[in-house]
Amino acid sequence: MTARTVKVIQAILANNDRAAEENRKAFEANGVLAINVIASPGAGKTSLIVRTLRALADKARVGVIEGDVAGQIDTEKVLQCGAHDAVQINTGGNCHLEAGMVRQALSRLALEQLDLVFIENVGNLICPTHWALGEHLTICVASAAEGHDKPVKYPEIFAKSDAVVLNKIDLIELVDFDRAFFQASLRALNPKAPLFELSCRTGQGVQAWVDWLQAQRLQG
Amino acid sequence: MTARTVKVIQAILANNDRAAEENRKAFEANGVLAINVIASPGAGKTSLIVRTLRALADKARVGVIEGDVAGQIDTEKVLQCGAHDAVQINTGGNCHLEAGMVRQALSRLALEQLDLVFIENVGNLICPTHWALGEHLTICVASAAEGHDKPVKYPEIFAKSDAVVLNKIDLIELVDFDRAFFQASLRALNPKAPLFELSCRTGQGVQAWVDWLQAQRLQG
Repeated sequence: MTARTVKVIQAILANNDRAAEENRKAFEANGVLAINVIASPGAGKTSLIVRTLRALADKARVGVIEGDVAGQIDTEKVLQCGAHDAVQINTGGNCHLEAGMVRQALSRLALEQLDLVFIENVGNLICPTHWALGEHLTICVASAAEGHDKPVKYPEIFAKSDAVVLNKIDLIELVDFDRAFFQASLRALNPKAPLFELSCRTGQGVQAWVDWLQAQRLQG
Repeated sequence: MTARTVKVIQAILANNDRAAEENRKAFEANGVLAINVIASPGAGKTSLIVRTLRALADKARVGVIEGDVAGQIDTEKVLQCGAHDAVQINTGGNCHLEAGMVRQALSRLALEQLDLVFIENVGNLICPTHWALGEHLTICVASAAEGHDKPVKYPEIFAKSDAVVLNKIDLIELVDFDRAFFQASLRALNPKAPLFELSCRTGQGVQAWVDWLQAQRLQG
């Protein structure tokens, strides 16, 4: 890359960080915990949000910002499943959400009526890692069906996540998944983040994730 | 984006297209069919290449260029499974391969001894779509475990693929996959590309894919 390209990219990221800071202040002014959910396409981001919505039905008011290249399937789904409010962002080809997109979504979300907001990023294990959105927590969702080598191949997101969810463990015996390899390579990158092995399909393991999430909520 | 940013990006893409054209000439000078394999992380790009290597063991000499953010697990695997030659590209954080990276890899690959080259792109359904590498065919691999909504959410890659592989159909009954929805949304984007439903794990359906691929080979 030329020096000019690098400068332009740095300016874009600096603008993004400023917008992310504004978003974070808006969340905190309303006592809302914001969670950036990052995963490959089809790892189960929406399914995890739906399971969490159900588990928190009478315990927390949850909003969802849905990021997709195209379509609004997920927004319809989370509204049907108990989200108090939801906004779709279509990036129109962009491979990640940016803070400015989230800021626009926030203008359509009743933050003062919410306790938690999930920001479901575009399905992509790489690019979303570099763009702060104003979140308090970054959660990486991996799927057992994707194989055990994901931390080795996509180290950045596993290194920076505040918690890692390994979804679809109901399939684990059917897909030659080496659990020890996955855990060891995750721990080499990120010694501390809790790992939740669960199945959004069967519900197995979901409660431990929900309990942990509840404990992260902002006070006041 | 500002006008200057757009200009810089256009210049980068134009440079890429020139390098892709050079790569394509190098492939054709050696009678090599080049295949750009694009998929989400863990959809089964490497598994498809390994199955194809085995099926073509005494029928074609196959080289592989492996693109990953980090690691060289896949290069070791394809060499063990019968690749005539293989080169690892680590993008160091970059979310897609670019033609210049492939050009460098080609300098380490004995093209004159090969009939086919697979270029396994970085696991990402979005960004690789925009970067020509010099390939003759673009193949999208989706996994039944990822769900049936991938064409709706990631339309560009499904629209531009020369063939679509739906892998992991051995799991299809276990993951609430709506085959009619997948097929209809794929066909709305891409009426003609063949769809190969297969399982790299069990081998089911692999032969039809291999037969089609053989028929695409360059003459001479």
